Amino acid sequence: MIEDKNPQRTSIAQLGEFGLIDHLTKHFEINQPSTLKGIGDDAAVLDFKDKKAVVSTDLLVEGVHFDLAYMPLKHLGYKAVVANVSDICAMNAKPTQITVSIAVSNRFPLEALEDLFAGITHAAKEYNVDVIGGDTTSSQKGLIISITALGEANAADIVYRSGAKENDLLVVTGDIGAAYMGLQVLEREKQVFQVNPNNQPDLDNYTYLIERQLKPEARKDIKDLLEKLEVKPTSMIDISDGLSSEVMHLCKQSNVGCTIYEEKLPLDPQLISVCEEFNIDSTTVAINGGEDYELLFTIAIEDFDKIKANPNLTVIGHMNKETEGKHLVTRANQKIELKARGWNALEE
Amino acid sequence: MIEDKNPQRTSIAQLGEFGLIDHLTKHFEINQPSTLKGIGDDAAVLDFKDKKAVVSTDLLVEGVHFDLAYMPLKHLGYKAVVANVSDICAMNAKPTQITVSIAVSNRFPLEALEDLFAGITHAAKEYNVDVIGGDTTSSQKGLIISITALGEANAADIVYRSGAKENDLLVVTGDIGAAYMGLQVLEREKQVFQVNPNNQPDLDNYTYLIERQLKPEARKDIKDLLEKLEVKPTSMIDISDGLSSEVMHLCKQSNVGCTIYEEKLPLDPQLISVCEEFNIDSTTVAINGGEDYELLFTIAIEDFDKIKANPNLTVIGHMNKETEGKHLVTRANQKIELKARGWNALEE
Repeated sequence: MIEDKNPQRTSIAQLGEFGLIDHLTKHFEINQPSTLKGIGDDAAVLDFKDKKAVVSTDLLVEGVHFDLAYMPLKHLGYKAVVANVSDICAMNAKPTQITVSIAVSNRFPLEALEDLFAGITHAAKEYNVDVIGGDTTSSQKGLIISITALGEANAADIVYRSGAKENDLLVVTGDIGAAYMGLQVLEREKQVFQVNPNNQPDLDNYTYLIERQLKPEARKDIKDLLEKLEVKPTSMIDISDGLSSEVMHLCKQSNVGCTIYEEKLPLDPQLISVCEEFNIDSTTVAINGGEDYELLFTIAIEDFDKIKANPNLTVIGHMNKETEGKHLVTRANQKIELKARGWNALEE
Repeated sequence: MIEDKNPQRTSIAQLGEFGLIDHLTKHFEINQPSTLKGIGDDAAVLDFKDKKAVVSTDLLVEGVHFDLAYMPLKHLGYKAVVANVSDICAMNAKPTQITVSIAVSNRFPLEALEDLFAGITHAAKEYNVDVIGGDTTSSQKGLIISITALGEANAADIVYRSGAKENDLLVVTGDIGAAYMGLQVLEREKQVFQVNPNNQPDLDNYTYLIERQLKPEARKDIKDLLEKLEVKPTSMIDISDGLSSEVMHLCKQSNVGCTIYEEKLPLDPQLISVCEEFNIDSTTVAINGGEDYELLFTIAIEDFDKIKANPNLTVIGHMNKETEGKHLVTRANQKIELKARGWNALEE
């Protein structure tokens, strides 16, 4: 499906470990005032001054988290950064640095790694994070990417998962479910391609869904938006593993229950029509599909007026007493219990 | 070679990703005042106050960096932490936190991961670092461990690779080469075992070498020692990839050359006798063998009197003009050019 437009193959073993690292990291710029020393010593040195440091880490494994049959390496590099930056955004903090470690099998030529690092560099520029360290080594099989993201925030601005209160409104940014359906479309095209490699896929009707899957963005804008609206969320999390799974984290750590209204879920029109085409229930997709990298947060009910007109934010329900449980209220006004069916990397 | 003393096997898929993470991380304690929030949110929150933060990261891959045939998982967990903590020590900083991400194939039962985490927990306690985050996922093949270590230091105390000056003395802590020879002994025993599994290895003559390979320690004591001796190194690096490779990093980043004296290299008597047994030149081992996790640093020549009596520190040479090159002076007073032949993870 992905044509090899670059027939040149340079063996990474030729360069050696240090040569490879030098080659791949030479384009990284340092732009954050908190970065005193980036790549090139035993460790990077950072100065967060009176701000708190926020640290998150993620491990992405080929064949588990991504499939190179339809995920171009440049997009993969970009997405790997986005997934980590999103965790920093979910603390209401500003992403500032990342470290990037990769392990690759010898089947990857240098040109493939250059593509991967081009995506990482592009994302680092887009999100204004400095690449301050990492490690490059070989793997027994496939590609593994480990990223650690750092950010900074004033102590008073940081939002945890544990602050939601009964009656708080539950708010989601953007729309949800599209990344999951994008993956379904790509999986189908992969199968078509395997049957007939000459088949040229027509993906015009799926552009938004595919973009959400292949080039998602982290909501770095939300911190500023909420500041402008003068709203501080009481709890927050990012939606990487699916809405139902994430809202249950908020409930568990805040000791509350929740009620979500099916009719309030923000779905893109393309998602709805493609769900129909695939004969999949769009609510199920919106609730359980992961990788949207939107933010889910709670606000005090008094703050409703401040956010209600904003097109980026949708109130999808509210928190309630823990003893009242966690429910989805359907369009037919049925109350069904929420189950976390988010993505589980350990399932076979 | 490693007997399976625990026949119980619990599938990690049964627990699920969050269950597994809860299970493995419940014993981690928070002891550092700079850790405001550890595991359990989108990110950890740290407060370094007026200190600088120091960050380093490493990726360890089964079959590339370690062999589970002779590396018990508990030792592996311990060593993975040590390798990262050592990078923080090499900045003359105090290790404070780590994140630990692992990817495992389904052949690993829960009990194996418990062993790995027991080693990580033991090291975290020994080095007084808080485990503040991580990720646990499945791999296509083998075990992958990604650790990011954080530390703190006063700006004035941090030592970079780039500060060495002409005529500075080159100092190494402890002794070198033993970890490499420990690996050779283990490799030999593995081959003996493969030929005859009933053969019981007698490792009494190799205990020190094997311990250096299987349970190395990072030199967290050196920062305090140097403070007590009132010496601030001009440059520093840890010896993970071999002395020759590491000294060349110091030379390159400090724009100097160096002269190392063969007769000064600190070798353990056991290393010398086992090198004879294996018919390997002990100097070659001391210069090129990695994984000792000792520190290599330079000091101003005026500071020599302060360190000369210390049994932990050995002056092995000095820095010189860059144009004079990098040399080893042999016992026969021959001057041979140093070549970095340190370990390269990308070689086949």
